[in-house]
Amino acid sequence: MKHINIIGIGTGNPEHLTIQAINAMNAADMVFLPVKGAGKEELAEIRREICERYISQPAGRISEFAVPQRQTTDKTYAQSVDTWHGEIARIYGELISGLPDDGSGAFLVWGDPSLYDSTIRIIERVRREGRVAFDYSVIPGITSIQALAASHRIPVNLVGKPIEVTTGRRLAQDGLLADSTVVMLDGEQAFAKIDDPDAEIFWGAYLGTKDEIVRSGRLGDIATDILTLRAEARQRHGWIMDIYLLRKGRDFDE
Amino acid sequence: MKHINIIGIGTGNPEHLTIQAINAMNAADMVFLPVKGAGKEELAEIRREICERYISQPAGRISEFAVPQRQTTDKTYAQSVDTWHGEIARIYGELISGLPDDGSGAFLVWGDPSLYDSTIRIIERVRREGRVAFDYSVIPGITSIQALAASHRIPVNLVGKPIEVTTGRRLAQDGLLADSTVVMLDGEQAFAKIDDPDAEIFWGAYLGTKDEIVRSGRLGDIATDILTLRAEARQRHGWIMDIYLLRKGRDFDE
Repeated sequence: MKHINIIGIGTGNPEHLTIQAINAMNAADMVFLPVKGAGKEELAEIRREICERYISQPAGRISEFAVPQRQTTDKTYAQSVDTWHGEIARIYGELISGLPDDGSGAFLVWGDPSLYDSTIRIIERVRREGRVAFDYSVIPGITSIQALAASHRIPVNLVGKPIEVTTGRRLAQDGLLADSTVVMLDGEQAFAKIDDPDAEIFWGAYLGTKDEIVRSGRLGDIATDILTLRAEARQRHGWIMDIYLLRKGRDFDE
Repeated sequence: MKHINIIGIGTGNPEHLTIQAINAMNAADMVFLPVKGAGKEELAEIRREICERYISQPAGRISEFAVPQRQTTDKTYAQSVDTWHGEIARIYGELISGLPDDGSGAFLVWGDPSLYDSTIRIIERVRREGRVAFDYSVIPGITSIQALAASHRIPVNLVGKPIEVTTGRRLAQDGLLADSTVVMLDGEQAFAKIDDPDAEIFWGAYLGTKDEIVRSGRLGDIATDILTLRAEARQRHGWIMDIYLLRKGRDFDE
């Protein structure tokens, strides 16, 4: 049967690749690379660099495909995601069908396939729809949470205490609940709306790449600086991927 | 100045090592390996195997040291951790002092140094105590959360929703709060005390090693099976490291 590997490749530092990921890339008959349109050329470039560095015989084994945009007009969020995943599933199905019998393919995922990424869900959908028979495996990768903590040289959790991992939208809606809250996918800079000036923020953008920026400090002191820095960087690059940890608790405050 | 790398090595699969981790291990004048006493020989063995596989010139560059046990008698939890970290900091200080001037050392950490691990805190303490001058970096590794999700081929989060990462002690105390809850360091099998039979559990032990066991299903159906399996495996190995995800929500249930 055909086999697909969904491979986590870390956050942009080619040295984030694991030996398992490199072996799986090299075992693939075809590595599928998404091209995401305007402003994402840098990301596609990093993926190509990773393939060139680690795939020993790349010729004819890398296939780029265009990823459709999610359409939000006249749709609920759930409907728009469902339609979008359906379109991507159709593309994945075609790519997988094009593999040789008993051949293997690889999809490369930023960070880790298990964290705020839809590749596993879409691959499951392709299997469910049943037009092409295949099995698949998931290969873990370094997440932006690990990259953020490593650059700041901090533990994410306080001793024996929980962590919340959430989105910008949820943070804006629910406020800061946990002692340690990691915020991903924040397009609205929800940290600047949190009324807790004494919380600490550990922020990072383009983590692992040559353009990495990190800042940390008391939220009340540096939230505005980060807003400015983020807007400038986004303008310069045409895109931004950032993440932060908010901490309001302390070790052993009982 | 002397330099220390705190290196995440993943969960026991030598292929979890990143290129960054391997390069840092090879650049080190000395790699420090903790030996944790009875029942943990298998873990020490996996660390040795990783060093043998990846360090090109290991002779004289690996130093094993004994880790003291935490003493809990007549102490609060915070006091016992503080005393214990103090003892380990003294040992780390001696190891670092023994490095050549401008030399580099490496500490290997299971999983990732930022997640429920004390190495960063203890290294900070050694610096604060000031008996030896050094700088340090943190190199991220594959966490057991990523390894669990990869083996089960699942996303950790539901679409757009938060994740809680917590300990067995906290789960037993607070109950199941989030749609997706990852439980680490659970010595009391708190999942079996959760009164939510329709929740799903995704459990794994010895993740990434040849002894990996995974089970998933409706909590009400398989909690007892996991208890039995876990007790048997623990008896057989003399130790266990396990982790699980509890899920009570669904994608798009609005």
